[in-house]
Amino acid sequence: MNARTGKVICDLTVSVDGYAAGFNQSEERPFGDDGADGTGSLLHAWMFDTPEENRAEAEQMTEAGAFLMGRNMFGPVRGAWDRPWNGWWGDDPPFHAPVFVLTHHARDPQPMDGGTTFHFVTDGIRGGALDRARAVAGDGDVSIMGGATTANQYLAAGLVDELRLHIAPFTLGAGTRLFDGVPGMKLEQLRVRSASLVTHVTYRVVR
Amino acid sequence: MNARTGKVICDLTVSVDGYAAGFNQSEERPFGDDGADGTGSLLHAWMFDTPEENRAEAEQMTEAGAFLMGRNMFGPVRGAWDRPWNGWWGDDPPFHAPVFVLTHHARDPQPMDGGTTFHFVTDGIRGGALDRARAVAGDGDVSIMGGATTANQYLAAGLVDELRLHIAPFTLGAGTRLFDGVPGMKLEQLRVRSASLVTHVTYRVVR
Repeated sequence: MNARTGKVICDLTVSVDGYAAGFNQSEERPFGDDGADGTGSLLHAWMFDTPEENRAEAEQMTEAGAFLMGRNMFGPVRGAWDRPWNGWWGDDPPFHAPVFVLTHHARDPQPMDGGTTFHFVTDGIRGGALDRARAVAGDGDVSIMGGATTANQYLAAGLVDELRLHIAPFTLGAGTRLFDGVPGMKLEQLRVRSASLVTHVTYRVVR
Repeated sequence: MNARTGKVICDLTVSVDGYAAGFNQSEERPFGDDGADGTGSLLHAWMFDTPEENRAEAEQMTEAGAFLMGRNMFGPVRGAWDRPWNGWWGDDPPFHAPVFVLTHHARDPQPMDGGTTFHFVTDGIRGGALDRARAVAGDGDVSIMGGATTANQYLAAGLVDELRLHIAPFTLGAGTRLFDGVPGMKLEQLRVRSASLVTHVTYRVVR
């Protein structure tokens, strides 16, 4: 029935204790209290402080044909869309493809430069979001970018084919934790590569 | 005051979601419901199914000058020592050194073949256990072998210098979780090596 060759991928940076973000997200601190001083992010130091070492993994993050993310990953606005917000990524976001944002608050699609359009989905993780993402991705992959709450919903529903984890060398102790509430899964370890500020691990979900 | 050169190491095998053991430990299933069928252990398949690939890491686990472990890692007996139990490791355990077992129930030391002696410590993680272990280890390392509950107490108390994690490719979804209740820590990634059924990662705790 489904002849798609593309995968559904979960691609997240986590601390060694599994947190994908700290509490108290704000416009200044997209990942909340993540252990860093000031506005830096210990989680994403691998991307911002050592980009040359991690070019392959960073580029791979944005190669999918469509993207899914939770509303908190899209931005710090809660409740109604009562102020302008088009994501953290500027006028030309790195996705260059449709991005489906899970929210309880309807909003018109937001086209951006470079081929990215944010679509706001209010009817759940499957029909409104994943099915539409699969349709536009064609034979390309669909990438679930986070946060952990969104990833956990897809993982618990058995809808993820591949996990790409970027494990940052610190523990956070509190926040939103990947796998929280997700039943056990057998995984196949596909690739492991370490760089100075991260270990990249890719797993296939075994069904 | 302390001229020791040895480190305090936490050496644990964990699932990708951080569990060091499942629930329902028994004599037949030392690691409880760990996702495997029968009596096998998905956690420790790297050690038992692919020993050649992982000889260095397995040998390193027993190189310390003294060892610490929780009572549940020592065995399935709960409460009083009301039946004979000398650990899971046979007459000649692989430690060849003193092993301090944290328990609420006093018991005389249990010498084994090959230099291992199990000492049963009832006065807490520091004085009775870690200080004695450091003293007998001399310039050698002290290794905290688990389980996660014991490791978490030492981590939360800031007493651990190095973390050696063996990450097995599955998620468990429930059990005793490493880092549960442990405050955030900065880590330095020292070594990463992957084999077919595991990723070995060593971190230094940054103080």
